[in-house]
Amino acid sequence: MVFIISKLYNFRIMTIKTISSLGEFGLINSIKKGLSNTTKDKNIIVDIGDDCFCFKSGKDYIHITKDMLIENVHFKIDWTTSYELGKKAIEVNVSDLAAMGNVTPKYIFIGFGVPSNTSEKFVKDLLKGIKETCNKYKILLSGGDTVKSEKIIISVTVIGIGKSKPVKRTGAQVGDLIGVTNNFGDSGAGLHLLYKHGIKYNYTKSERVLVNAQNIPRARLKESCKISKYLTSLTDASDGLFVSLNLITQDSFKGAHIDIEKIPVSYNLKIVFNNNKQILNFALFGAEDYQLVFTVPKSKSKIIKKLVPSITYIGEIIYGKKVKYFYNGQEQKIKYCGFKHF
Amino acid sequence: MVFIISKLYNFRIMTIKTISSLGEFGLINSIKKGLSNTTKDKNIIVDIGDDCFCFKSGKDYIHITKDMLIENVHFKIDWTTSYELGKKAIEVNVSDLAAMGNVTPKYIFIGFGVPSNTSEKFVKDLLKGIKETCNKYKILLSGGDTVKSEKIIISVTVIGIGKSKPVKRTGAQVGDLIGVTNNFGDSGAGLHLLYKHGIKYNYTKSERVLVNAQNIPRARLKESCKISKYLTSLTDASDGLFVSLNLITQDSFKGAHIDIEKIPVSYNLKIVFNNNKQILNFALFGAEDYQLVFTVPKSKSKIIKKLVPSITYIGEIIYGKKVKYFYNGQEQKIKYCGFKHF
Repeated sequence: MVFIISKLYNFRIMTIKTISSLGEFGLINSIKKGLSNTTKDKNIIVDIGDDCFCFKSGKDYIHITKDMLIENVHFKIDWTTSYELGKKAIEVNVSDLAAMGNVTPKYIFIGFGVPSNTSEKFVKDLLKGIKETCNKYKILLSGGDTVKSEKIIISVTVIGIGKSKPVKRTGAQVGDLIGVTNNFGDSGAGLHLLYKHGIKYNYTKSERVLVNAQNIPRARLKESCKISKYLTSLTDASDGLFVSLNLITQDSFKGAHIDIEKIPVSYNLKIVFNNNKQILNFALFGAEDYQLVFTVPKSKSKIIKKLVPSITYIGEIIYGKKVKYFYNGQEQKIKYCGFKHF
Repeated sequence: MVFIISKLYNFRIMTIKTISSLGEFGLINSIKKGLSNTTKDKNIIVDIGDDCFCFKSGKDYIHITKDMLIENVHFKIDWTTSYELGKKAIEVNVSDLAAMGNVTPKYIFIGFGVPSNTSEKFVKDLLKGIKETCNKYKILLSGGDTVKSEKIIISVTVIGIGKSKPVKRTGAQVGDLIGVTNNFGDSGAGLHLLYKHGIKYNYTKSERVLVNAQNIPRARLKESCKISKYLTSLTDASDGLFVSLNLITQDSFKGAHIDIEKIPVSYNLKIVFNNNKQILNFALFGAEDYQLVFTVPKSKSKIIKKLVPSITYIGEIIYGKKVKYFYNGQEQKIKYCGFKHF
């Protein structure tokens, strides 16, 4: 649900661990435990733990997602323009709605923490990015706070309304095909380049495409609206394809067979990184591609491929608990931190 | 909507100005201007600018309020316990719902920014305060993020559902009585004491009551649910009585006649501060009392006083644009920074 600055996946994982193991207990889990789940609420359709929370009101499925982006944790102002940052802050939240299916983004609430020495230009450009992206999705700014802070903080809450049941991560069935939209790895590769060279480097055209994938991602809302009614499970790859596949299989209590060679990667990624292992590291572990990852019954797989031609099928849901990775039919050992053998 | 650390009202006002005049343009207003209000949404019942945003879904009035609390801006960890801070973070958001009338708090979303050196005890106690208060109101934790940050940040979004139209600030009519719940000034006086002595000082019993009013406020939700259907306008005094009266009169395009001597102040405030001028400064300008401030037709004023005996009537809505203050029938000149003449 959040984008995190990371020196590729290794650093990234460390960052998350440091935060979530604070005092050796999961902060949010710890809260949830003690809270009144005794208050069983029959209107709750999707509880904490999916891409959005969703409750039913009349005929509406009301979705809520909330993200907090902090300078030097989730973004560096040296690596992006504030205009891009404004756009990204909205897109990543819309991506959480896209991860639930056919949901219309409606209302947005923004909390800004701004150091007093922040330049007017920075703020104006940030707002321009936010405005343009809100207008694109016809989202209405419905509340906001501005407070003084030491670092820039952008706290966003988005409300989206769906007219049909959301697609959770829990419905994958054995035999379903595992599909994704577009390509994987560009955004992680872009972050890698930013770590190496910063933003002012004289990038090649292909490298610039990768950096832009990191700084100006796009939510796959249109695609989700077209296909969601056929899907059995759905998420967005905000934390990387590897994580998304784990989430769907774990939440559905199933296993998966993935054909690594089918994972779609871009022409630009292949041009810039002439190393298969590195490319696949980006594709599996580089986060923030914001592509859809989903499962669909085989009988519907052709229909949705017609609706969204950028779809690729990369594997199948199987019995078991594990996501098994194969390369040309040979099973590969893959751990969260990268490839052990390839 | 937010509580702000302040060396009483003077400091407080300065703080707000510094933030909101950032780059000499109002941040949120500036966003709103460019956003797609062309997207006229007939379901919006209360737009940005009131205590909550509210939209209609079926028969439900869905209220949303969002606050961001930042260490050393909205709280100091030396002046409160993290247990109290957790309680307060929930209460001030529930108070925003209470400011809309008969609204049931339902779902809460919390974003935590936590420095990595934060102690386990601090976090555990914070959670305890949050849990207890959520349980008290039967609020369900519905989403949350934990991220690393340099200072402690608590970003809270609360969803409340009302079954009847919310009471806005806009409906005050000439002749309506202006009512308030309970007393004013305790919380501001408590903050004053904390500035002077810190938390570890050996406070008298009365002083401790004032400090607690600052650190452990209580939303007036029950009171609001009982009386809201009779009211013509309503807000909570999160930013002080003076500000609340300005908001109601400005938003309703009316004036007000206030009898200063009727403003209710506590026994403890009078014991600790033996100075009428100072007491009234606290009562008018000291923020965070989280009492209800409302208008009611005279014909209903006795009914609601029976329902909530703590109600006091302090004045009346009149023609005009100004809030006029009287002491024993003599008009007083009062400016935002305090009394000019008394």
